[in-house]
Amino acid sequence: MTLFESFLSHASCRECFSDREVLAAMLRVESALAEAQAEHGVIPVDAARVIARHCDIAGYDVAAIMAQEAGAGSVAIPLIQALKQAVQAQSEAACAFTHMASTSQDIADTALALVTRDALALIAKDLRRAVYAGLALAHRHARDPILARTLMQPASVTSFGFKCLAWTAPLVRAHLRLHRTAGQALQLQLGGAVGTLAQMKGKGPAVAASMARSLGLHNPEISWHTQRDAWVSLGCELGVLAGSLGKIGRDLSLAGQFELSEVFEPSGPGRGGSSAMPHKRNPVSCLTAISAAARAPQQVASLLAAMPQENERALGLWQAELAEWPALVMTVHGSLAAMADALQGLVVDTARMRQNIQRLVQALPSSVAGQWFNAELADDIAVTTQQQADRLRREFDSVDAG
Amino acid sequence: MTLFESFLSHASCRECFSDREVLAAMLRVESALAEAQAEHGVIPVDAARVIARHCDIAGYDVAAIMAQEAGAGSVAIPLIQALKQAVQAQSEAACAFTHMASTSQDIADTALALVTRDALALIAKDLRRAVYAGLALAHRHARDPILARTLMQPASVTSFGFKCLAWTAPLVRAHLRLHRTAGQALQLQLGGAVGTLAQMKGKGPAVAASMARSLGLHNPEISWHTQRDAWVSLGCELGVLAGSLGKIGRDLSLAGQFELSEVFEPSGPGRGGSSAMPHKRNPVSCLTAISAAARAPQQVASLLAAMPQENERALGLWQAELAEWPALVMTVHGSLAAMADALQGLVVDTARMRQNIQRLVQALPSSVAGQWFNAELADDIAVTTQQQADRLRREFDSVDAG
Amino acid sequence: MTLFESFLSHASCRECFSDREVLAAMLRVESALAEAQAEHGVIPVDAARVIARHCDIAGYDVAAIMAQEAGAGSVAIPLIQALKQAVQAQSEAACAFTHMASTSQDIADTALALVTRDALALIAKDLRRAVYAGLALAHRHARDPILARTLMQPASVTSFGFKCLAWTAPLVRAHLRLHRTAGQALQLQLGGAVGTLAQMKGKGPAVAASMARSLGLHNPEISWHTQRDAWVSLGCELGVLAGSLGKIGRDLSLAGQFELSEVFEPSGPGRGGSSAMPHKRNPVSCLTAISAAARAPQQVASLLAAMPQENERALGLWQAELAEWPALVMTVHGSLAAMADALQGLVVDTARMRQNIQRLVQALPSSVAGQWFNAELADDIAVTTQQQADRLRREFDSVDAG
Amino acid sequence: MTLFESFLSHASCRECFSDREVLAAMLRVESALAEAQAEHGVIPVDAARVIARHCDIAGYDVAAIMAQEAGAGSVAIPLIQALKQAVQAQSEAACAFTHMASTSQDIADTALALVTRDALALIAKDLRRAVYAGLALAHRHARDPILARTLMQPASVTSFGFKCLAWTAPLVRAHLRLHRTAGQALQLQLGGAVGTLAQMKGKGPAVAASMARSLGLHNPEISWHTQRDAWVSLGCELGVLAGSLGKIGRDLSLAGQFELSEVFEPSGPGRGGSSAMPHKRNPVSCLTAISAAARAPQQVASLLAAMPQENERALGLWQAELAEWPALVMTVHGSLAAMADALQGLVVDTARMRQNIQRLVQALPSSVAGQWFNAELADDIAVTTQQQADRLRREFDSVDAG
Repeated sequence: MTLFESFLSHASCRECFSDREVLAAMLRVESALAEAQAEHGVIPVDAARVIARHCDIAGYDVAAIMAQEAGAGSVAIPLIQALKQAVQAQSEAACAFTHMASTSQDIADTALALVTRDALALIAKDLRRAVYAGLALAHRHARDPILARTLMQPASVTSFGFKCLAWTAPLVRAHLRLHRTAGQALQLQLGGAVGTLAQMKGKGPAVAASMARSLGLHNPEISWHTQRDAWVSLGCELGVLAGSLGKIGRDLSLAGQFELSEVFEPSGPGRGGSSAMPHKRNPVSCLTAISAAARAPQQVASLLAAMPQENERALGLWQAELAEWPALVMTVHGSLAAMADALQGLVVDTARMRQNIQRLVQALPSSVAGQWFNAELADDIAVTTQQQADRLRREFDSVDAG
Repeated sequence: MTLFESFLSHASCRECFSDREVLAAMLRVESALAEAQAEHGVIPVDAARVIARHCDIAGYDVAAIMAQEAGAGSVAIPLIQALKQAVQAQSEAACAFTHMASTSQDIADTALALVTRDALALIAKDLRRAVYAGLALAHRHARDPILARTLMQPASVTSFGFKCLAWTAPLVRAHLRLHRTAGQALQLQLGGAVGTLAQMKGKGPAVAASMARSLGLHNPEISWHTQRDAWVSLGCELGVLAGSLGKIGRDLSLAGQFELSEVFEPSGPGRGGSSAMPHKRNPVSCLTAISAAARAPQQVASLLAAMPQENERALGLWQAELAEWPALVMTVHGSLAAMADALQGLVVDTARMRQNIQRLVQALPSSVAGQWFNAELADDIAVTTQQQADRLRREFDSVDAG
Repeated sequence: MTLFESFLSHASCRECFSDREVLAAMLRVESALAEAQAEHGVIPVDAARVIARHCDIAGYDVAAIMAQEAGAGSVAIPLIQALKQAVQAQSEAACAFTHMASTSQDIADTALALVTRDALALIAKDLRRAVYAGLALAHRHARDPILARTLMQPASVTSFGFKCLAWTAPLVRAHLRLHRTAGQALQLQLGGAVGTLAQMKGKGPAVAASMARSLGLHNPEISWHTQRDAWVSLGCELGVLAGSLGKIGRDLSLAGQFELSEVFEPSGPGRGGSSAMPHKRNPVSCLTAISAAARAPQQVASLLAAMPQENERALGLWQAELAEWPALVMTVHGSLAAMADALQGLVVDTARMRQNIQRLVQALPSSVAGQWFNAELADDIAVTTQQQADRLRREFDSVDAG
Repeated sequence: MTLFESFLSHASCRECFSDREVLAAMLRVESALAEAQAEHGVIPVDAARVIARHCDIAGYDVAAIMAQEAGAGSVAIPLIQALKQAVQAQSEAACAFTHMASTSQDIADTALALVTRDALALIAKDLRRAVYAGLALAHRHARDPILARTLMQPASVTSFGFKCLAWTAPLVRAHLRLHRTAGQALQLQLGGAVGTLAQMKGKGPAVAASMARSLGLHNPEISWHTQRDAWVSLGCELGVLAGSLGKIGRDLSLAGQFELSEVFEPSGPGRGGSSAMPHKRNPVSCLTAISAAARAPQQVASLLAAMPQENERALGLWQAELAEWPALVMTVHGSLAAMADALQGLVVDTARMRQNIQRLVQALPSSVAGQWFNAELADDIAVTTQQQADRLRREFDSVDAG
């Protein structure tokens, strides 16, 4: 990740996909595999114990493993070699049972599901921040009139609370959809060399069930080596979230124009300054959300484009998908964190909102002004706004608690 | 749609999005609006009756309405004018209540949901064809060995039935996901000028509920003029389906190479001929699925890119989304119909599959051949294949029946 | 093309890609092929005469040919059959020489180059309109101050003429790049069944040279059946143009907000009205450019994604490229025509521009205002603006004349 | 860059875009700015000398600067602060002239042009490797027959040399187009706060000319802060190259299937092994090219989607473009290096190619076989192949030398 990209995401999310964390997750998968195989008599219990003991990333030289990746075409291969060497040093017998009946894709896909789960937890946390802030704004400003604008022109009056409600509703829906989609997508990958688990002599399904349970992942019953639909569907939902956040960023940046001055994202020392113009405060949170909304659609398209994966393992398309995945997650989380910050610290100028309506009213024939730009139009939706805000809060919490 | 594009979709699906069908759906929305408004006392019952009576497309000159679209920037505007003129000719009073408290986006979005529902019914029907055919193949060929290939190289042996199962599983999941996603996405749009339904004096929610009921659409409770997440999420699922179908098309086209000759899509007179080479049969169904898998990701990306729609109605992005939507649906349906045809008529050469294994075995050291390319490996997954096929059939039918 | 898409392009450009025009172009290619083959003794002169006589679209039933497309997987195949039948009715001998040594891709690609050339002529014409209008505005407003805005915040003062110059410069560069790129991309396709022109017994290159000359296309010397780089490079340039136009549309729509009211695109009866709000004038030209800028990137991505075309003719990717091509050209031309209209009729309120500066100045410390928001800053770039406008005009004309 | 992505690019190219190299380039831009300003009397010569002396990255704490990036929304801002502090420590007077009349975008864009130039030099070097290897293969195998395949079916016979020629021709054209496009795109960015260079009191153009000369960049005469067409056009050409390389990778992977076994990319120890199947050699170079061809289209689409940058500096879209740029360059270079390796070390089995033709011939009626699958068809294009190879070599060298 270059310096042109890194400031658009958060360190917490980048950490989820760091070399060390991903390799650590791969080792956790190997450990869970060995233990599940021992449980069902596929490998000796002693061997599983030895293997599991060596599945701590602290015992490995991350840089040395990374250095062998390029030639292998996969980092799982040198990692598994390193694991086997470590196991062999303790027990020749256990070595033969290491990574048994599995394939590097099983390890890589499952590890990616594990670290993605961590990243989704960050997303859920920031969704809560954004949703609570958005709904609080909806309540607080339920009766504050603001110009409604369509096709970039004043159209009538709405309430600022209703705008906040409309911004927040898609975030609540995103939370519900992500929860549901992740339930399918965060799944075990276990198929062995060609998806059939042939080397486990009929015990494959039982091993998979145990492994899924111990890792806390969904068990898909059939390996998904080249059937990426559940996984890509999760990626799509992240893309949709980026779009909903981009809309908030776009609206905030429009409302924050000097000539409107209706709302501002919070600013602070070292945030949003200009190298040339000391008088400027740049809306850096909006910047982040807008840039993410421009990039995420294409990142999703790459996942979709990578779906027609040949036969039992793809040449190139699987790798393309894995390459794009972390970038998508980090981009979307970066946008979400930025919009959560913006909503939590939003500076709202309701007086200016009224003033903008007044200025327009003065420029219009009074009949039009009276019908369309009466500030009291805001009152009409105040009750609806607050009721819907409460409903959305309940819907959000229903999943959050679960 | 140019001649370079039209043969990649089906006439049945193109018909759903024809000018006439879309305008007819818009009129149905106007009719439902008037009736719901009358039900709740927003407009007189007599007016609603007059309006509804003029909401039959048979009474309109489609070409004349289309001719006025370009200047208006929306076809809803000339259509509503034509409707008002027709109503006015019968009743001056009723005219004032036509399209009342609504906006052209309400009509266009709801109409698009209606015609999309028709297209999704076509998709459900062809999904059933494809899934039933795929699962029947899975059963029939559960024990027929075929080379499993990873990274375009022979890797081991699987069964052809298992391959068919793996092709079909994503189609079953697509059916479940589309069903669920459409339940949210096929929703009423009703917000009036700026999303607040202000002109209905508090009766907006009741009108919306009635209207949603009469049109058989989901009632989202808040207008989604610029919050397109549920809708785009449906588009994403269509894109995911295109990817899963593209994988089948890719696999079939690989297996159908002369040197493999394991399966062929059905051919017939006038299907797949060559202008230069009379000896050739081109796999036209695979062609369709592969081309769709190359295009759909970008069509989805356009929907996602169009999400950051400003304020209460977007300038350009809404229009971009609507423009791309029908093409996506038609492309995906075209691919699905092609793959349903291919699976239903698939020509399977199990003898050649065994022969291909044998040729490889002869080229390998016997120890490798014995471990990895034993044709009996297919038997190991036969039972699993059939059990999973039965499970998938039940899952598919659970929704289909509902 | 559905009604959600059609109003975003122009009838003139849609006509270029109509079924009739494309089939007519295919017949022109067959005629040129026969004549070039006769010139070099590949087929008898008499046969060529008969063939050429039947290469007028007026003699064919377009709908009947279209009806056979779906099964064939290409419209060239039924067209060529119809041509052969027509020729055969006159001369059995000539029939055997019809479409000789060619393949349907030769005909389709070359025909698409021909109709694309027509569309590029429309683009060149509208580029001239846009560039001349933009440069005239640059001259006229070279000294009119306007707020310069960065990151959506006022940053300093520029001149409106300089803004117009900056909008127009990319259009001039687009003209130059399109001219150069089209020179390579508008090329003959002639390779025969597998790209080798084998059936012409060594006379292929001479035939190709003659054919390219008679059709006015570039002769690439090697067939480009599956090497699409020159062609896709042209598509990319169209995508770049859509981006440059989208920037103008975005800027105009921002400047036309009520609170800024600095410029407006022209409006007229039946243009930009609202179905709900009689007081509104919607910026329909900006709408068109913004929607195109949201769609074209993905249309370009589809062309790029379709490039890895297998072996001597692709299965699916070639068809995907052809399907996307006309939509891209029409989208970009629609955007260009809209921006040419907008620039030609632009309503400029220089008083309001000054007023907006004044309002800002009043809100700032005088030191900042004096340094950054002095209206006289506009004067500093007046001379540069006019010199550059003259240079750009010369550069534009240098190609236009050629 | 995560471990799922890093092995798809080369360390040499990643180094070009490393934090350190980019910051070093930014300092070179500041130095060139100061010197050009001194040359034209905008700042004192002494000040320029002090500034230039502190423009060596060795004097800075890269990590400390990076740590301040997130808040600032740009890395240029903390870097310029660090530079000013360093200059100030030596000369208060010089500090006031540091970064004078410039803006952070000037520095960032120009620095990115500089490091991109380095990356393009890597690309030119590997293009030479690939082109020379491809043309040598074209010569060597000009008469070796191989099945030509269209729509994934045998169509006729071509020569393997002609296939190599067809693979290589787009690389030669890419070289020519990149050379020409880079000549425009590798340009100075210098506009100051809002693109007008107002603070240089009329000396802006002269300063820009000197600076462009000293940095070896094109001088665009007008700043391109929000007019990204030349730059994005270069990105497009990189995307086109990825497509042409993906086609080679696709073809090699098809020809390398066990059942065809016509060509193989070179393999070696630690390259292309399998974690599960010791008998396998995976085509890792093809994997790299195919994955790049799936990702690059979307990366290009992101650049295009980021083009409608508002007013004098964009909020979000500029940042989106910068974020995607290095990834695109690295992806394309990774693909190119892989294909250069593959072509240089290609293992070609001409006997097997003939054998595959024979097997097909045996399966066909003799009349068809004799007309379409006569191995001597390869001879017909041998001379053309070699002539064209020589022409392409000359064209390639014409630029390379320049």
